[in-house]
Amino acid sequence: MTIKVFGHMAPDTDSTGSPIIWAWYLSQIKGTPAAPVLLGEPNTEAAFVLDRWKLDKPAIVDGVEPGAPVVIVDTNNPAELPAGINDADILEIIDHHKLVGGLETKGPINITVRPVACTATILHDLMGADAAKMPEAIKGAMLSCILSDTLEFRSPTTTAADRTLAETLATDLGVDLSAYASEMFAAKSDVSAFSDAELIRMDSKKFDVGGKTFRVSVLETTAPEIPLGRKASLMETMKTVCTEDGADEVLLFVVDILREEATLLVPNDVVKTVAEKSFGATVAGDHVVLPGIMSRKKQIIPALTL
Amino acid sequence: MTIKVFGHMAPDTDSTGSPIIWAWYLSQIKGTPAAPVLLGEPNTEAAFVLDRWKLDKPAIVDGVEPGAPVVIVDTNNPAELPAGINDADILEIIDHHKLVGGLETKGPINITVRPVACTATILHDLMGADAAKMPEAIKGAMLSCILSDTLEFRSPTTTAADRTLAETLATDLGVDLSAYASEMFAAKSDVSAFSDAELIRMDSKKFDVGGKTFRVSVLETTAPEIPLGRKASLMETMKTVCTEDGADEVLLFVVDILREEATLLVPNDVVKTVAEKSFGATVAGDHVVLPGIMSRKKQIIPALTL
Repeated sequence: MTIKVFGHMAPDTDSTGSPIIWAWYLSQIKGTPAAPVLLGEPNTEAAFVLDRWKLDKPAIVDGVEPGAPVVIVDTNNPAELPAGINDADILEIIDHHKLVGGLETKGPINITVRPVACTATILHDLMGADAAKMPEAIKGAMLSCILSDTLEFRSPTTTAADRTLAETLATDLGVDLSAYASEMFAAKSDVSAFSDAELIRMDSKKFDVGGKTFRVSVLETTAPEIPLGRKASLMETMKTVCTEDGADEVLLFVVDILREEATLLVPNDVVKTVAEKSFGATVAGDHVVLPGIMSRKKQIIPALTL
Repeated sequence: MTIKVFGHMAPDTDSTGSPIIWAWYLSQIKGTPAAPVLLGEPNTEAAFVLDRWKLDKPAIVDGVEPGAPVVIVDTNNPAELPAGINDADILEIIDHHKLVGGLETKGPINITVRPVACTATILHDLMGADAAKMPEAIKGAMLSCILSDTLEFRSPTTTAADRTLAETLATDLGVDLSAYASEMFAAKSDVSAFSDAELIRMDSKKFDVGGKTFRVSVLETTAPEIPLGRKASLMETMKTVCTEDGADEVLLFVVDILREEATLLVPNDVVKTVAEKSFGATVAGDHVVLPGIMSRKKQIIPALTL
């Protein structure tokens, strides 16, 4: 039975590329039938990466069958996985997020979580000497995952392991790292085709803070004027999103990759309080600029206070 | 602040030795202050191992303080750890059991779970080339952990990695592997000093099966006549243990290491049904011999049916 390898439900570059990389390793190197699948439509950057490296777009599935053999990469959070995930036969978990609890396995399996910026960096490490056998497209996917998750090494989640590996891969592939990263970020910034609700949910995770549930959404972009130009309608749409998704507030951070700052939309007094208490900011109008804030995992979530 | 390294609450050889090994690695090789601690009195085999390799007995602690830096080895089960474990600062988890869910970390950390027989085997792998720097006592602890968890390679949990490492360590230490394993098992079998309740709880884990809670206890021994000679009073004591520990039944398996079989005590019809349904056994009296059954993890738990 072919093993399905997948990441989380809102596939960004790491959650699209890492399943492709690991399924290649399992099937081509370990001789274990495996295929990457996606739990949703890849974002515009991930779609660009598939196209650039001529990688087949993995099939999109909306669930897993009980007993089906699966490998989970880039998350350990049941909320970001299909409802019946614990009924599947989870064979391996490879991730770089904090342990949230909730996933269960039938027996002892391989679990590897490392505090690096990118799942693909862990995959490279796990491959050992076999990494040298990666074809160009797989190396390209790996490079893309690292550039995406580190925002070209600007994110404070970046480790020496991520950076060294990406630089080695770029040299090896004959790719101008900065030029390629700019192309990727331009693809990610091309969000004009999305509705307000789609933008809010595109890269979003729910967290409980002080008894309230926040949908913490991040839009990483080199063209902040696109989402910020739609500020008013985005804030109006937050109400609907909250009702539909069972959240109290949406915190939408527009991360300007090049200026290395985030703009948080402030639709009401609750979010104003959160912004002031969490980031020591002074909020005057309907948004606030937070210099240096790039990472939800490392800077936003640990700071959130109500 | 010194990192506390510990295993589960009923310290056997692996849960005593692995904290010692990893605290040595952290403090002596990585330069990070770390100390092994125990969450209970080590069993007789673990006490023998400490004595044999002249290792200091780690301090026994009964809890962890909020925010205290800790490394957890040989379990990922909150039920086998102090109540406030998720309030501690969990820095790393290294284990070889199935993921049960429930542990949470504040940020991304190192988590390594591998389906091998023994935590110490994983520790050796994680050390890489630094393993060569282990002093004799640490090597002795590592050898002991593997011999204990594999029952000298008789347990079906044994992998080639466990076996090869133990054989290499024994050669390196100039230890006769089989003779040393026999000494360890003799120490483990010397349980005459313990009360019935202590015997039942010595190596025991709670599992829910078909709506009932079972305390699944294992006594690995080369002298099964010691516990089996106390069959009647052990079965009487099971009632008290069930009441005190919130369990419905005790399943006590006396594992004969040398004959490679388990004897399950059958105090009542519920346990009789479990024995017959789970192991296809025919139960006539107050116990049943199960040939080949050695491992709770690999053979008992997966089979349990009500």
